[in-house]
Amino acid sequence: MAESFPLDEFLDVAVDASKIAGEVIREAFYQTKRPEHKGQVDLVTETDKACEELVFNHLKHSFPNHRFIGEETSAAFGTDELTAEPTWIIDPIDGTTNFVHGFPFVCISIGLTIEKIPVLGVVYNPIMGELFTGVLGQGAFLNGDPIKASSQTQLISALLVTEDTTERDKPSVDAITNRISKLLYKVRSVRMSGSLALDLCGVACGRLDLCYHIGFGGPWDVAAAAVIIGEAGGLVFDPSGGDLDIMSRRVAASNGHLKDALVDALKGSA
Amino acid sequence: MAESFPLDEFLDVAVDASKIAGEVIREAFYQTKRPEHKGQVDLVTETDKACEELVFNHLKHSFPNHRFIGEETSAAFGTDELTAEPTWIIDPIDGTTNFVHGFPFVCISIGLTIEKIPVLGVVYNPIMGELFTGVLGQGAFLNGDPIKASSQTQLISALLVTEDTTERDKPSVDAITNRISKLLYKVRSVRMSGSLALDLCGVACGRLDLCYHIGFGGPWDVAAAAVIIGEAGGLVFDPSGGDLDIMSRRVAASNGHLKDALVDALKGSA
Repeated sequence: MAESFPLDEFLDVAVDASKIAGEVIREAFYQTKRPEHKGQVDLVTETDKACEELVFNHLKHSFPNHRFIGEETSAAFGTDELTAEPTWIIDPIDGTTNFVHGFPFVCISIGLTIEKIPVLGVVYNPIMGELFTGVLGQGAFLNGDPIKASSQTQLISALLVTEDTTERDKPSVDAITNRISKLLYKVRSVRMSGSLALDLCGVACGRLDLCYHIGFGGPWDVAAAAVIIGEAGGLVFDPSGGDLDIMSRRVAASNGHLKDALVDALKGSA
Repeated sequence: MAESFPLDEFLDVAVDASKIAGEVIREAFYQTKRPEHKGQVDLVTETDKACEELVFNHLKHSFPNHRFIGEETSAAFGTDELTAEPTWIIDPIDGTTNFVHGFPFVCISIGLTIEKIPVLGVVYNPIMGELFTGVLGQGAFLNGDPIKASSQTQLISALLVTEDTTERDKPSVDAITNRISKLLYKVRSVRMSGSLALDLCGVACGRLDLCYHIGFGGPWDVAAAAVIIGEAGGLVFDPSGGDLDIMSRRVAASNGHLKDALVDALKGSA
């Protein structure tokens, strides 16, 4: 089904959209770092909305019949129903807390699903100048160079990335720290970057070997990166080991070798 | 005492040294990312040693009578005694695990103590092209632009960075996860970058509000950044709230407002 669409042309449009939004994000990013900045929350909300609108409009111009799911739109209209139609799933700023603080792990994530399957992904970090792209069957790239997941086969030598959540109730915090505690014994070291989309792209390009996150924002955090990981020879799946459901707010990823070891290590806590 | 030394001239020499070593690190960093790389551990050890030697030689040429403490040297000669003499304290690669994996938080750290007090610091990330510098009484800079710590006054809005350790025994892992667990309830979010020197510089430039780490490698991880934080209006101290002892392998840092809140939050676990 996806093969009947000109996905490489779709990719060009999505990359253009990410660059347009990236320029807005970069400008605002350096504004938030001014010590005298005011209305920080407003700046985030404004930038988030402005970028989503820019990306939506740019894509809609080329694809008037496609469907759209975005973090801001879904919040506003309470809908994030995924259908079989070609659907663009957009996070205008992934890593919002980083954006506010000026920590450079910030990106735009643009994914496309067809028949509910992620087929195209663009993840662009305009601060560090890194553009990750992937199209089903056509490989994964960082700034145009092919990338692949790591070749690490030992869990104890693996670098794991995960994230906390915005929830601060005891069960949520306990679940997160219990998982970290269990995993810390088993892997080489843990990273927390503050951007799930960039974490997943880190696995795709072999900087990181493993990733999991349970309870994140929505499909916009994973739709694009899922394609990029798969095309880079990595694996993306439910933390239980089952198939990834991008609507479930649960994700795990590994290079081509460590899925079973990660699922096993998470057993009982995922 | 420190005032009688031409610290700004010392800084120029240290920056030159960091750039020379940075070139070597950058080259090796991209080598480790080749999928077919062999002898990864050897590459790290070799690069670590080569960089320490380059930095030592460059500094010794200008300062034949100064003393030197380095991670590699200390490991080899079993000495890291700090005296009142001008002493250069060097970590040729901070973030070794990141270096191996290709995760871009990697830096060279060059600090100078006089009368056991850190008076000059250079922290250079050659992958991201960020050079942090600070000299006692002369301010702190990122790539030549003045930096300052954040103005955040609320712990619940603060971004905290910490690190795990290479220890994998139960008491060490439990201590780390207990602290993260306690802190997660009290701050906005947690980051783990894999480079303590860059974490501390992140506090200095206001990207991060708080940092603590207990049980890290040695004085080479903090000597340089301690000056940079202080000159940026941040605070660096023992996690108990007492004075920083750079030989103690214990450090905490905050912007100008959140020290007491961090010390309080760590109470009983630091």
